Amino acid sequence: MKRVINLGLIGFGTIGTGVVRLLQANGELIAERLGAKLNLKRIADLDIVRSRGVSVPEGVLTTRADDILNDPEIDIVIELMGGYEPARTFILKAIDNNKHVCTANKALLAAHGDELFKSANKKGINIGFEASVGGTIPVIKTIKESLIANRIESIAAIVNGTSNYILSKMTDEGGSFQDVLKEAQSLGFAEADPTFDIEGIDALHKLAILLSLSYGGKVHLNDLHREGISTITEQDIAFAKELGYRIKLLALAIRRGRKIEARLHPTMIPLDHILANVNSNFNAFHIIGNASDSVFLYGQGAGMMPTASAVLGDVVDISRDLLKGIAGRVPPRVLDEEKIQEIALLPFADVTTNYYFRFSAVDRPGVLSRIAGILGKNNISIAAVIQKGRKENGAVPIVMTTYKARERDVQKALGQIDRLDVVMGKTMLIRIEDKKLS
Amino acid sequence: MKRVINLGLIGFGTIGTGVVRLLQANGELIAERLGAKLNLKRIADLDIVRSRGVSVPEGVLTTRADDILNDPEIDIVIELMGGYEPARTFILKAIDNNKHVCTANKALLAAHGDELFKSANKKGINIGFEASVGGTIPVIKTIKESLIANRIESIAAIVNGTSNYILSKMTDEGGSFQDVLKEAQSLGFAEADPTFDIEGIDALHKLAILLSLSYGGKVHLNDLHREGISTITEQDIAFAKELGYRIKLLALAIRRGRKIEARLHPTMIPLDHILANVNSNFNAFHIIGNASDSVFLYGQGAGMMPTASAVLGDVVDISRDLLKGIAGRVPPRVLDEEKIQEIALLPFADVTTNYYFRFSAVDRPGVLSRIAGILGKNNISIAAVIQKGRKENGAVPIVMTTYKARERDVQKALGQIDRLDVVMGKTMLIRIEDKKLS
Repeated sequence: MKRVINLGLIGFGTIGTGVVRLLQANGELIAERLGAKLNLKRIADLDIVRSRGVSVPEGVLTTRADDILNDPEIDIVIELMGGYEPARTFILKAIDNNKHVCTANKALLAAHGDELFKSANKKGINIGFEASVGGTIPVIKTIKESLIANRIESIAAIVNGTSNYILSKMTDEGGSFQDVLKEAQSLGFAEADPTFDIEGIDALHKLAILLSLSYGGKVHLNDLHREGISTITEQDIAFAKELGYRIKLLALAIRRGRKIEARLHPTMIPLDHILANVNSNFNAFHIIGNASDSVFLYGQGAGMMPTASAVLGDVVDISRDLLKGIAGRVPPRVLDEEKIQEIALLPFADVTTNYYFRFSAVDRPGVLSRIAGILGKNNISIAAVIQKGRKENGAVPIVMTTYKARERDVQKALGQIDRLDVVMGKTMLIRIEDKKLS
Repeated sequence: MKRVINLGLIGFGTIGTGVVRLLQANGELIAERLGAKLNLKRIADLDIVRSRGVSVPEGVLTTRADDILNDPEIDIVIELMGGYEPARTFILKAIDNNKHVCTANKALLAAHGDELFKSANKKGINIGFEASVGGTIPVIKTIKESLIANRIESIAAIVNGTSNYILSKMTDEGGSFQDVLKEAQSLGFAEADPTFDIEGIDALHKLAILLSLSYGGKVHLNDLHREGISTITEQDIAFAKELGYRIKLLALAIRRGRKIEARLHPTMIPLDHILANVNSNFNAFHIIGNASDSVFLYGQGAGMMPTASAVLGDVVDISRDLLKGIAGRVPPRVLDEEKIQEIALLPFADVTTNYYFRFSAVDRPGVLSRIAGILGKNNISIAAVIQKGRKENGAVPIVMTTYKARERDVQKALGQIDRLDVVMGKTMLIRIEDKKLS
């Protein structure tokens, strides 16, 4: 019986270093549990000189990924280089050479998952990607295995640690978006170029992956509504507090009959919502199944060791298959790849939810009634109004929240309102989510 | 290729009814995901007359468990009758007849798991028991699979919904233990005989199961310290609030070097502890792995449909093995059964933690100093004192919290204090847990 599983690691960055460290720290424990030794045979990276603070045996490091991809002894390839290329090519080659794959590469899976999963399926190859969404949190396994008997009614998730850190700081300690972003960058919680995180691109990749597992289908990133957090102001944070909400960048998937409503944007949620207390750089998933009811998962969505924990969880999962001489026990997207179809998305214009508007209006009698009139004509009912006499550049903020309204109507109404001569700038819109999604 | 997995259900109570309902509601979806149909071939129960609000095809119901256990067509036996016997005998017979088993029977597993798991291992049979701990929450799978690369540093868990409901009610709405228990019974949140729940017996069973998975070993129920919630008074709830704590019935497992500290008792936890906001009848698990850091799982720990979701999650898991022609992919207690040993428990007297004491003392000068003197002589340092002039049956409550102290010293000191002529009754002791366990 096979007693050694040979691993090849491509990408010796932060997470790759974590994998090496974790194998060194817990390798014996893992071997005892698995009944086989995980042997990290090769590590490929363009830079094999820089010190990562871990020592690896001589001959392990290489600058050529092919030393892994062409090594017939290597059973599992761990791809941790990130980005589209050459990661895609390497994974396809690994599959072609009958090597199983673990990856944390959400960008690649969101954009090219269909191609990779189909290739893997054809060759009877496993692809593990728990680390691609929610870091150490076992959300992928929970959806694909634990909740498999459920129709997923909704998922509301905080999936980007950087955005959550910035919004949490702005809420709890104050400061403008730009100031808090700078601080996050200096602490290593945000990248030098933070676009992927703050504009919701990373989070959208993760939402796309969750959708494909939960609703057994393909989804195109461009079909998903995405808004980042860079437009959130201190004023909005303050008004949210006044209204009893916290603002979170939420990834939402909600079943609406045969269609799926999916969107990613800053969202006001009530203080007693289970996601409202997920702060700092933590991630969390609130999943409702039609039998399970609420299941809530929380933990570190990134970081060296937490992510390495998820990667090696996948490695052990695949190894357990290999030790039994099988593969493909759980299809990558739950359904057999031949059954994978396009997910029928609800058009974004048809989304119905509650809204927060912050109008910048001239402080003059009659303004409120003109705004309210336009909203009313567009079938939007006002739930609450906050108007204060503060002057800022001659404009006062008027804040309104609405009862359930339709996105199409809201966009039309705001288009009309923003053209009013008494309205000084673009109206800020933040959607509000009720406690329970349904 | 096998396209039908035949199931036999023994025990047609609440959860059994949930399994039938869930198969009827989501059977097609499950079949699509699994690539095979789950066919509930027989249901055995002593009472096959009572209406459960679900219809089953003619010929499915039987009063003889043997109609399932001896049916060569049945692949998986779902045991949902509960209790030690005849559940134990039925499961052993199922294993003997090469049938895989799913069970929610924590009492049986905690007491006889060793025998059942060893038998299953010998025959190459799977036993699924996700539903035995935490209802719908995927805690078993998370420990056995997702966190497999981690050394588990600690688990703090709320695993008994009835106790949590009662403590939450007492805290949020007031009332004595007895009054709230009665209300819980009338609402169906507590049994007519609530002993198993309120005395921590059910919770201890679950702690024993978690220990065996996390630390790869056997554990004897009698070796685990257990206290229930029936001694908690309104006074303690009020003092806890005053001190900034909530009282929860916590199941605790903490690694202390090569030994494991395991205990179940009412515990004061800070308001900002992640478990402090787990209220009503919800369950939750806060697991710290040495790589994963905190992983927090939350959901319904009981109930018809949430538990049925966990049962069918296991059924699908086993079915996925069967469709690949394998079994025993993940050993029931993570380690190969031949490697299972006794878990080395830290003797309870060696536990070191913080304490809350409520003394019932005569309202007379010098009492406080006599109590404090005894504590000091026993190496127990006082962190805070609350003494108020309230008279109750001639006694006043004196409340103290301590810095870290040793259980052995605490028991010795309380023994001495309770013998003082100025102390009117047994001192109340509640342990306090810090925010992070380590």
